Amino acid sequence: MVDEVRLLTADDIETTRNLLQGRVLRTPLIAAPQLGKITNTELYFKAEIFQHTASYKPRATISRLSALSDDEKERGVLTISAGNLAQGLALAAAELGIDATVVLPATAPKSKIAATRAYGAQTVIHDGEITQLMDRAQQLIDEHGYTFIHPLSALSLAAGNASIGMEILEDLADIDVVLVPVGGGTLISGIATAIKLHSPGTRVIGVEPVGAPSMTLSLQAGSVVPLASAKSIADGLCAPFTSENTLLHTQKYVDEVLLVEEDEIVRAMLAILEHSKLLCEGAGATGFAALLSQRLRLAAGSRVVCVLSGGNVDLPVLQKLIADRHHYEN
Amino acid sequence: MVDEVRLLTADDIETTRNLLQGRVLRTPLIAAPQLGKITNTELYFKAEIFQHTASYKPRATISRLSALSDDEKERGVLTISAGNLAQGLALAAAELGIDATVVLPATAPKSKIAATRAYGAQTVIHDGEITQLMDRAQQLIDEHGYTFIHPLSALSLAAGNASIGMEILEDLADIDVVLVPVGGGTLISGIATAIKLHSPGTRVIGVEPVGAPSMTLSLQAGSVVPLASAKSIADGLCAPFTSENTLLHTQKYVDEVLLVEEDEIVRAMLAILEHSKLLCEGAGATGFAALLSQRLRLAAGSRVVCVLSGGNVDLPVLQKLIADRHHYEN
Repeated sequence: MVDEVRLLTADDIETTRNLLQGRVLRTPLIAAPQLGKITNTELYFKAEIFQHTASYKPRATISRLSALSDDEKERGVLTISAGNLAQGLALAAAELGIDATVVLPATAPKSKIAATRAYGAQTVIHDGEITQLMDRAQQLIDEHGYTFIHPLSALSLAAGNASIGMEILEDLADIDVVLVPVGGGTLISGIATAIKLHSPGTRVIGVEPVGAPSMTLSLQAGSVVPLASAKSIADGLCAPFTSENTLLHTQKYVDEVLLVEEDEIVRAMLAILEHSKLLCEGAGATGFAALLSQRLRLAAGSRVVCVLSGGNVDLPVLQKLIADRHHYEN
Repeated sequence: MVDEVRLLTADDIETTRNLLQGRVLRTPLIAAPQLGKITNTELYFKAEIFQHTASYKPRATISRLSALSDDEKERGVLTISAGNLAQGLALAAAELGIDATVVLPATAPKSKIAATRAYGAQTVIHDGEITQLMDRAQQLIDEHGYTFIHPLSALSLAAGNASIGMEILEDLADIDVVLVPVGGGTLISGIATAIKLHSPGTRVIGVEPVGAPSMTLSLQAGSVVPLASAKSIADGLCAPFTSENTLLHTQKYVDEVLLVEEDEIVRAMLAILEHSKLLCEGAGATGFAALLSQRLRLAAGSRVVCVLSGGNVDLPVLQKLIADRHHYEN
């Protein structure tokens, strides 16, 4: 299912979940009574921050790389990434015995670059616009013959991420809303499909930063819209485009995609840290940001799951956010 | 079992666990593969930081207050606390409809004092040595006739904490070592009893800060030794004494009690935050500190559970620890 543009099936999801069994961690769903009180909801966090690499990406990359032919594996793989996909690809490649190279922007968190190297991948740091990463990648592919792993296109990426939706449904019944951060859209594509196929009454709502509204613009246009630039404290959501597959799944299964401001993301990060004792990166906190900032208004007592997609924030960045926290308060 | 000095039985533990059912959260055991790699162990964290009040204390206080007579409840309760027991007592008292007052040191984290008030308890801030809290408490008891809840003595406190040990054993088999922070000793008394009665091959090791070695000194003396003073970044462990019951259980069921330095506790806090994405207060990180600092050396691959007992650290304190983190590196 590498190049196909079509909707995932329940079979795709089950097959991929079996493939991932024992290779990724089954992450806990954590009750958040204190933030639930503040937001007047019954709140839970799906803690993908505890996944290997501290982000959900290994679910996608192990699924994706497992679909490669022997020849494609032999040539080594290359992708472009804001940092979390980089680690996920590095981990999956190491597990499957494949050479991996990742082109990252110079603005990627140091910890993400270091972790990518620690998992054994080669890193190429691109010091320029995030929208130019692909040009740099193409040069390397032309030069070395690497197999390109598109960060968004392949259906197998979303199929891996669907396992998150299945785990949520196994752990909790009668969920009113699932809130999912949106970058290029593979995370919400997988989760929304799993949720809607098995619990059609549950609403799935995507949240993106105003600085990287790739899905919002793509939905408005009805086609994939590349961004001229993308910038947010939620660096993990700065994919400057969506894909035909992620747009298709979002159109079909996602009830709504909301935008949040930068200060709302920071407030959400700090609230999750202070009250739920969990360290999220900006991207990871973006779903909850919509709830905390009341961009999403729900009936009192609604049962809500926020997917905390990643936790890779450098401690000096966190230090600065705490120091400046009064600037982010309303 | 309020005033008795004796060992907890399996029946005590089961009865108390049933009492707590639905009143406290069943906290997750979280795999920590990255810190496991660093410490050469198979590592798990028992995350009591997700408990109501962000510490294990409600297990102890709900158990304790449930044992009160109607007359004792009627008079209202009073305790002394470094901050987490305060919140636990406030929550339990609110749940059982009892008036509560807590005497806290002025050095207690602001968030702990605020949370205690938010749960509805009256707070009395004592601006002096932590060892004098009891004198202040006695004045208030004489004046108002409150029922005194000793922070350590009653067997029912340890019986509540034993539920943590039972949950650990249900979630994981063949555990080599359980590491538990030690303040006055009610936490380790409960956990060690549960573990040793049901999994005698598992070692239970306590860890205290050098600045508050109440259990170490009590074990050496063979009797309860009050400290002249107690000071540590692990404010939650600054109980200036043990009790006959906690010493008895520690002597019987705890394999060893280790001491760790202040910088080792801070390093453990920051390592848990950076690599496992969990926010611990100093007390919460003290068990892991013994492992990270190699004060405890284990066979490679040992299966270890560290109890993260509390997560109530003020964000400005965290900010300063991160800013100064290079001072804490070896």
